[in-house]
Amino acid sequence: MATQSPKGFRFATINAGFRKEDRPNLALVLSDTPAVAAGVFTTNRFQAAPVIVARENLAQNGMAQAVLINSGQANACTGKEGVLNCRATLNMVSEALAIEANGILPASTGVIGPQLLMDKWQAAMGPLAEALAEGTCTPDDFANAIRTTDIFPKIAYRSLMIQGVEVQLVGMAKGAGMICPNMATMLATVLCDATVAPEVWQKMFRDAVDKTFNRVTVDGDTSTNDTVFGLANGAAGVAIESAEDIEAMSTALTDVLGKLAYMLVQDGEGATKVIRIRITGAVSDAEAEQAARTIGHSQLVKTAMYGRDANWGRIVGALGRSGCTFEADDVVVSLCDVELFRNGQPNAANFDDQLNGPLEGRDITIDIELGAGSATYELLASDLTHDYVSCNADYRS
Amino acid sequence: MATQSPKGFRFATINAGFRKEDRPNLALVLSDTPAVAAGVFTTNRFQAAPVIVARENLAQNGMAQAVLINSGQANACTGKEGVLNCRATLNMVSEALAIEANGILPASTGVIGPQLLMDKWQAAMGPLAEALAEGTCTPDDFANAIRTTDIFPKIAYRSLMIQGVEVQLVGMAKGAGMICPNMATMLATVLCDATVAPEVWQKMFRDAVDKTFNRVTVDGDTSTNDTVFGLANGAAGVAIESAEDIEAMSTALTDVLGKLAYMLVQDGEGATKVIRIRITGAVSDAEAEQAARTIGHSQLVKTAMYGRDANWGRIVGALGRSGCTFEADDVVVSLCDVELFRNGQPNAANFDDQLNGPLEGRDITIDIELGAGSATYELLASDLTHDYVSCNADYRS
Repeated sequence: MATQSPKGFRFATINAGFRKEDRPNLALVLSDTPAVAAGVFTTNRFQAAPVIVARENLAQNGMAQAVLINSGQANACTGKEGVLNCRATLNMVSEALAIEANGILPASTGVIGPQLLMDKWQAAMGPLAEALAEGTCTPDDFANAIRTTDIFPKIAYRSLMIQGVEVQLVGMAKGAGMICPNMATMLATVLCDATVAPEVWQKMFRDAVDKTFNRVTVDGDTSTNDTVFGLANGAAGVAIESAEDIEAMSTALTDVLGKLAYMLVQDGEGATKVIRIRITGAVSDAEAEQAARTIGHSQLVKTAMYGRDANWGRIVGALGRSGCTFEADDVVVSLCDVELFRNGQPNAANFDDQLNGPLEGRDITIDIELGAGSATYELLASDLTHDYVSCNADYRS
Repeated sequence: MATQSPKGFRFATINAGFRKEDRPNLALVLSDTPAVAAGVFTTNRFQAAPVIVARENLAQNGMAQAVLINSGQANACTGKEGVLNCRATLNMVSEALAIEANGILPASTGVIGPQLLMDKWQAAMGPLAEALAEGTCTPDDFANAIRTTDIFPKIAYRSLMIQGVEVQLVGMAKGAGMICPNMATMLATVLCDATVAPEVWQKMFRDAVDKTFNRVTVDGDTSTNDTVFGLANGAAGVAIESAEDIEAMSTALTDVLGKLAYMLVQDGEGATKVIRIRITGAVSDAEAEQAARTIGHSQLVKTAMYGRDANWGRIVGALGRSGCTFEADDVVVSLCDVELFRNGQPNAANFDDQLNGPLEGRDITIDIELGAGSATYELLASDLTHDYVSCNADYRS
């Protein structure tokens, strides 16, 4: 039951020749009927063509029938031609599948700069329609086809009972594994077969993204293509309307996106650790976030965690330059639940013995109580490793 | 002449046993007479004990007779005891050399957390006074003794003629080479033998620091101990008073600090490149700085430069998330003077052939014209390398 796909969605993935490797690189999910849709996009000022087009399509009426994702080409920094090309690919799919072009939400990931290979797109339409008609593709195939250098496909299922009816959710993501020789792009799609009013779906979707994808960091870089889509098609035959049902659906949605977000960090470029940074006692939410991000982006903290080094001095140093309000003597720092720093001084106990084991594990926690207020923030960050550098330094010599 | 030390300063360096290695780790420079003094300190909210004490001493009357620097122990995050210990070391030196304790400016670099080894400090006073009396120590010895993991000592000389009299400047710095297992600390001392009024010296010193040390970055982490001192003792017998002389002295001072700042980046943790990032056409100085720092701190840009990869997509991506005001179509990006990006698209020319040579060199330039205003900013940044990770991931297992 837990791995059942939401009703009324069909999948198709093919190798359209967009990448060198012989594996699927074009992925489509089609809802039998137009679905209530939501999208969250990169805040980067350079917006990739598919981001521009997906925004336009979503703005029309908040509905969509399909999500179309290619890997291999980002269609970013491609100017007006890139936008025209993106629209042209939607027209091709529209014609091939007999659906509305503006009901298709596009996303792309891959090399920045080059224009889409339009001949390969045209040639892909027949195979794409065939794959859809065969009906054997699954969410796992979709998650696999949108991968670039992700080590593992990222997929999460949840079901919940609403008024005695089982509602299914599935989320599929690709991660912050570096797309050599360009930047990491995070793409995710979550599908649901309940009926949800557009404004309710969009709000719970944005809230869930804010609590999950917006609280992870690999290297602090934001791609031109980052996109999360959410579709609710109502095929399960039950509507989410009461406050109680909305609450239950929000929790399930946040759970699915949270699992995907964790996987993104776990599969971050060369990452060996998932570092959970929890700030408490800040004077404001913004300051709590700032403290967490300064620590989560600190190269010195990230390398120390990679090195399994209980280096509280680097954590304290990053906190001290974060710009947050606190008194040095009020701060308490714990690593993997072992208190290291209090009253402006290191804990006198020999904590290395206590920490050697926990620091070997994948999941690391850094807890910081600022003692200045009541605001909190939690962030997941990866460590910084030799493999990160190897992955991102594309030696051309 | 270019490597002559300013008049009226004497140096002493000894091995006080603060570090495992058998080399000097306590350094003193003494002016024959109290000198006009200036200091710029870390903005980190956790301030090391010597930073607190040096601020106090400078605040008294803006004069100082000595700078005292130890490596091996940072005396940071050591609470009230750390401050008392720092003052006690100044009292020891005061007694040993018969100078005022509050005329000594202390700085420390090394491991964060442990208290100073006061017995070793006490035992060091005799040898320190002897070394001073011998009179053989030089600015090079001073620069060498304050090193931690710096690969090379950092020293810069300048002389200038003022009213027919030769004035000497010398600057000595230690850099952002990682002080395993703790954070990098930047310390510098510049000495001058002209007479300069305190408010004039302090202003030109702050301006020079702002144009140099405040415009370099290795990993964006700011230490609890960062300190720059400047002493002008008047021993050359000429006063800097006219606007013209002040201008000449400011230029020389900025030149000395600029050379040291460049060396800090060059000797950054594992660095192989010095990346000069020049932003032009920003709407404000703050935005120009923000753009430069976002690019200079981008792990993706830094690894690309390490990999000699003309990866303009990462530069554009970092710029796009910097929060700066611009239109994507107005931006022009050049790497090592080769234009890569204009009108929202990559330059069609095959630039790899032009860039393969320049990207092998140590000095890399990234020029970005935003086309949004007239503000500019320039930043020096290091690359991010395997050696950076090795240096900072202190495997304990």
